Formats: sequence, C-alpha cells, structure tokens
Amino acid sequence: MSGCDHPGLMPVEAALARLMLLAEATAIRETESVALAAANGRVLAEPLIAGLDLPPWANSAMDGYALRLADWTGQPLTVSQRIQAGSAPAPLQPGTCARIFTGAPLPAGADTVEMQENAVLTADERVTFTQPLRLSQNVRPQGQETRRGDNVLAAGTRLGPIELGLAASLGAAQLTVRRRPRVAVLSTGDELVEPGLPLGPGQIYNSNRRLLIAWLQRLGCEVVDGGILADDLELTRAALGALSAVDLILSTGGVSVGEADFLGVALRDEGELALWKLAIKPGKPLTCGQFRGVPVIGLPGNPASTLVTFGLLARPYLLRRLGVQRVEPLGFAMPAGFTWSKPGNRREYLRARLEHGRVVPYPNQSSGVLRSAAWAEGIAEVLEGTTLNEGDSLRFIPLSEILG
Amino acid sequence: MSGCDHPGLMPVEAALARLMLLAEATAIRETESVALAAANGRVLAEPLIAGLDLPPWANSAMDGYALRLADWTGQPLTVSQRIQAGSAPAPLQPGTCARIFTGAPLPAGADTVEMQENAVLTADERVTFTQPLRLSQNVRPQGQETRRGDNVLAAGTRLGPIELGLAASLGAAQLTVRRRPRVAVLSTGDELVEPGLPLGPGQIYNSNRRLLIAWLQRLGCEVVDGGILADDLELTRAALGALSAVDLILSTGGVSVGEADFLGVALRDEGELALWKLAIKPGKPLTCGQFRGVPVIGLPGNPASTLVTFGLLARPYLLRRLGVQRVEPLGFAMPAGFTWSKPGNRREYLRARLEHGRVVPYPNQSSGVLRSAAWAEGIAEVLEGTTLNEGDSLRFIPLSEILG
Repeated sequence: MSGCDHPGLMPVEAALARLMLLAEATAIRETESVALAAANGRVLAEPLIAGLDLPPWANSAMDGYALRLADWTGQPLTVSQRIQAGSAPAPLQPGTCARIFTGAPLPAGADTVEMQENAVLTADERVTFTQPLRLSQNVRPQGQETRRGDNVLAAGTRLGPIELGLAASLGAAQLTVRRRPRVAVLSTGDELVEPGLPLGPGQIYNSNRRLLIAWLQRLGCEVVDGGILADDLELTRAALGALSAVDLILSTGGVSVGEADFLGVALRDEGELALWKLAIKPGKPLTCGQFRGVPVIGLPGNPASTLVTFGLLARPYLLRRLGVQRVEPLGFAMPAGFTWSKPGNRREYLRARLEHGRVVPYPNQSSGVLRSAAWAEGIAEVLEGTTLNEGDSLRFIPLSEILG
Repeated sequence: MSGCDHPGLMPVEAALARLMLLAEATAIRETESVALAAANGRVLAEPLIAGLDLPPWANSAMDGYALRLADWTGQPLTVSQRIQAGSAPAPLQPGTCARIFTGAPLPAGADTVEMQENAVLTADERVTFTQPLRLSQNVRPQGQETRRGDNVLAAGTRLGPIELGLAASLGAAQLTVRRRPRVAVLSTGDELVEPGLPLGPGQIYNSNRRLLIAWLQRLGCEVVDGGILADDLELTRAALGALSAVDLILSTGGVSVGEADFLGVALRDEGELALWKLAIKPGKPLTCGQFRGVPVIGLPGNPASTLVTFGLLARPYLLRRLGVQRVEPLGFAMPAGFTWSKPGNRREYLRARLEHGRVVPYPNQSSGVLRSAAWAEGIAEVLEGTTLNEGDSLRFIPLSEILG
C-alpha cells in the first residue's frame, strides 16, 4: 500500500481514490441467483435486459372509447365491444368504436382513444364525441417505455424497491446478484464494555460496534461480530487469525501513535499497515492494511469520527468491492446559517440540520459522541483553508444518502 | 371520512394533513422491548433518558501528559504513573505528572493535559513542556456531551445506526419500541400476472407488489401479501374480510371512475370510501377509507403514481401511526436544468437527476413505468400554475429520503 507519500495530511479525495483501487483489486465476484423477494439491498451482478416490450401492446391511457380516427365523420358510432384491462380484444369492426378502460389493450384496427368525459351516448346507445380528435391521442404505443433487448439496469446497480418493481414489470422472478460481503467488526480497547453490563472505573460503553453492525446490515453485508479486542498482542493475533474467511476486517480505535497498539503490531508482522493521516475532521487517522491477506480498515475510535470515516470512505469502498459504480452520496450546495471565521487545515464535516433552508451545525461538534449525529439531518462540509459568512454556500450531504 | 368537500382537486398539503389526522386517530400504541441488535429500523416508544454522564469522567483528548497546571513552573516533572484507556488511575502525586493516553480518565488532582508532541523527556526521564500551557487544555470534562437525566432521544424517533450507537454509548441494551405495523398489500386487476409466469394476451406483470413490499419492509412493517384481487365482488369481499388483523390494507389500482371497481363497492357497502382527486401528477386518484374498521389506502395503479403517492402520502401516514413526528422528506432548493413552459393545474413530481448541480428530468415522464425512477436520484417538484426557466429554483427530494 503506497498510502504514505503525501507530505502532510492526505486529502479525502486521494484517500477515496486509493480505496477505490484497493476495492477493485479485491472485488467480490461470486454471484448467486435470488428471488425478487430476497433481492432487496443486493447488488446486481449482470445487466437486466428487457425480455419484452413495455407496454407489451398498445393500450389505452384513459377510460373511454377506442376507434380508428378515419371512421369518425361526426356521425355517432356503434359500440361493438367492451375491453377491460386484462382482456384480449377482437379486431375492431370497421366503422365502430369499442368501450375501453385504462390499461386495456387497443384492438387491432383502432388508433385513437377519446376519454369518456368527452363522449356522449345517444338514445340508441351509439357514441358521439364533443371535442376534435387527434390521431393516436390517449394511446400508449407498444414499447413506448422499454424495448425488448434494452439494458434496463446495469450490472452493479443496488437493488431497492424501485429496481425490484422494475424487474417485476419485466417478468423477472430471479436476479443474479453478488454474494453478500462478509465483514468482521472489531473494537479495540480495554476500556470498552458492552451495553447492559455494569461500567467499572475508567470504562465506557462500546457504541461503535452497534453503529457499524446496524450500518453494515443496511448495506447488505453479512456481519461477523468480532467483539472487543483485548490490549494484548497474542490475543489480537489469535482474534485476527480466526477471521480468515471474511472479506474485510473493520476495526475501530486502537491504531494511533499511542503505545498500546497491538493491532498495528500484528498487521506489521503478518500483513501490511499504512497509517493515513486524513485531512478531515473529525476522523484524522485511518488504518489501511491486511492481515494474512484479509483486508483491514481501521477507523478512528471516536464515534463521530467513525461515522464520518465509515460514511465517506469505508462505505464507498465496500460498495465498490461489489461492483457499484455510484458510491458517493449526493451533496447539495446550501447556504450557511452560521459563520466560520477560522480556516482549518483539515476539511470539517459538521453534523448539521437545515433550518429555513440554511445549514445549522449542532453546537457541540466534539468527536466524542453521537448525540450531534442523532440530532442532525446531514453532514455539512467546510473546505480546508476557507472561512464562511452567513449565506455562503457549502455542501450538505443528507444522512439518508450515506446510511443505506 | 370527510375527504370529498374540496370543490376541485385536493392540494397535496391538504391530503397530507388529513392523513396525519387519520393516522393519529389510529395510532399503533402497543410496544415491545427489543435488544439493540433487533432495533434497527424500529420506532422508539419512550424517550431515551441518559442514565449516566458522557463522558462518565473527565478524560484526556490526547496522548500526552496530565498535570495540575499550578505544578508547572518550567522545571521538569517526574512521571508518577501511566494511565491507559480503561484503567482506574490513582490520584496524581502533587508536583508530578502522569503519562496519559487518549480517552483515559484524568487522575484526581490533574486539570490539564499537554500532548506528547509538545513534551520532551529529559535524560533523567522527567518531562518538560515546550509550549505555554492553558488550564483544562485537552481535557474533556465529565458530562460534557450528556448529563445523566438528559432526554437524549425523543419518543417517536426512528432508530438507525446512529441512534443505536448512541443508545449503546449510554449502556442501554434493550429499547422499548412500537410494535411493527402489519400492512397487507393488495393489487387489483385481472390483467396482472406475477413475474416468472407467462404473459397472456392483454396481461402485464405486477410490479407494484414488489415495489411496495420491499418499501414497506424498509419502513419496518410486517407485510401480509394479499396477492392480486380478482375483478369480482364476492372474491373482493372475502379477500378483504380475511385481513381483519392488519393495521392497513394498501391496494394499488382498481379504484377509479372505471366501471369494474369492486374494491370501491366493497368499501362503500361495509366501511367507508373517499375518493380524493389529488392536485398532483402523477398520482391523481387516491382512495382513503376502511373495510369493517380496517383502514384502507388505495394508490393509483401506474407504477410512477404508486411511487409518488406512497412516498409523499402513505409513507408519512404509516410513520405517523407509529408516533414519528418528522415524517416528511428533506427537500433542497436546486436550480432547474430545463425549462417548463406550460403551467399545470396539478403539482408535478418529475423523476430527475442532478447534473452539474442542476435538476435534469428523465425525458419520458410517463406514469406507466419505473424506468424513470430507477434512473433518477430524486423527485423534483414543479408547482402548479408555474413556469420555469433554466436556473430557476425548484424543490428536489432525494429518493434516499423517501425510500427508507
């Protein structure tokens, strides 16, 4: 890993670019075929090609009457058939019209539909139209939306409700998807205690584990709970060694310039270790390496740092390993509802809300807790070396764009 | 339901306000206690009150040395103890300092931390500092983030990775949540065929069912698959009657001014039926009623209409039934990358993307298919009675804001 040639801090774009290369080099290529009902959140392994036209046949966009426009001379037309959605109509008898309902197939010979609101039934149950007619009006031609053979969804598409509905509309009952990534979540630090247990002196509850496990599940990962790594080299080695079947070991905390860094030692001894100093705040230190060939990403242990580095770096990395191309969240240029007078040398990601269309940061941006993030609607990006006045534009990333 | 007194079309705000009232009148109040690991996507039934201070004790924000500032006279200090995260330090010996690591508790008697980068070890292993010191620097005081007794998450909060991490940081192992809503999904129409089966003449594949089931699952609902309702009154009655244990019957298609509306007949006979004509496009007709006391929402059958009406109306309705207060998606004022020359009498929701920071709609906005939505990154709102020039501002709702 050639992660350390940046003289000072590594810009987030550079870190992301390196992670994308690493992800592509370790792509998870195994596939499986799953029913639509089980495909929510999975990643398409092959393009979805339309096997039929949509709509499969010309149909009516309205409840009304279908006719051949040339038959309409202003004289009432006999209603020769009635076509419900789901029925197979007979060809239209020349010189007549057909009662037709929304979505029902146009009978052969018809080329125009008039909506019932502009039709009048005569005493002898024939139909006359009150408005001028245009050829093809209210007709949805066959294949208007999709042609057989169209590449409807690219390989690498993440499948959500819309994509599953679209696949269903094409009759696909099974889809070929990448297998789920297996991700082990490890926390490091003797100070960590699991929720529900009593807190001893000097201890704190482990919050990153729950944050990351829930998040990884939303990303379609199979999570291996690696628990809390003890501050002991042999135990660290043994715990890492037990994870040989995972695609990624994700750790939080414990890799820093501190002296008690057994994870770092284990990686140096039996793998690779790069310590990136990212030009972002929160979230400066990021570990990138491998242990006996299994990729390892070490996130900083402060919860807000974990949030930002997972959302901006580890999430895109994992998605790219599955072949997803669009891995970055949408961001929106929004006016600041605050001032920023001290330009920083790191890009700051503020937990923020929109109030009256302006970005308002949580008052306490300490990286120690998630309370700011639970309050926030998104993350606002203050570029390095800049100041902001109220109304100046900055990028706002909705949390919904990174949490799923 | 007093849904039909609007003279013309019902504005979306009015429809939403009515649905909120209906939701509050039929709130799902039963609760259950679930482990954090099972709480992803659930809705908190009671406020989460902090049972401890965060941080629970003053601690160091840096790797460095802890001291009492008054002891620093410029003369080197002896290092009297070493405090790792997770340990319980002895009180600081007067006139000495302590080696300390990030997150470790400050020893009693210390009030200041200097980072190791500004510390120099003397030959006799004492420590001297190269920079001026400030009282309390690099110290995170007890309770800085959260005080015991703080209302940390309100009842009605949707629990995602961040909220679960926050609850874990407070030691909560179980949370009290509303029970999952049970929602039956019904499609109406003889023309519908399930994916995987052959398509007969006049038939189309049922896409809304997959769209809605996957979506409801993301919203934490328990989904009852009601299948496809036949175009037959007695079968419709029987199918609805079998759903007496659900919280909502969600149907698509079939309730319109068309003649083959057996769902509408069944609701009129044994419940209530209001047909709302919404001032939105796609998605004009919406049914709101009940069958033998079970709430029924009928969405229009065109997939894009289903998408828009579920996302803008049924989703907030369901969340509000669980007590969620913030039920509307974030929207962003963004410049149009297109012109809109013909003002409409309905609010249009265009499936759109952002390109170079501008809103670009999918070329074919037909309500018949989901292809536009699969291409889109969001929904752009063109207000009724307005035209747009390129660069004019319109509201853009990221799909991620409504899909989960």
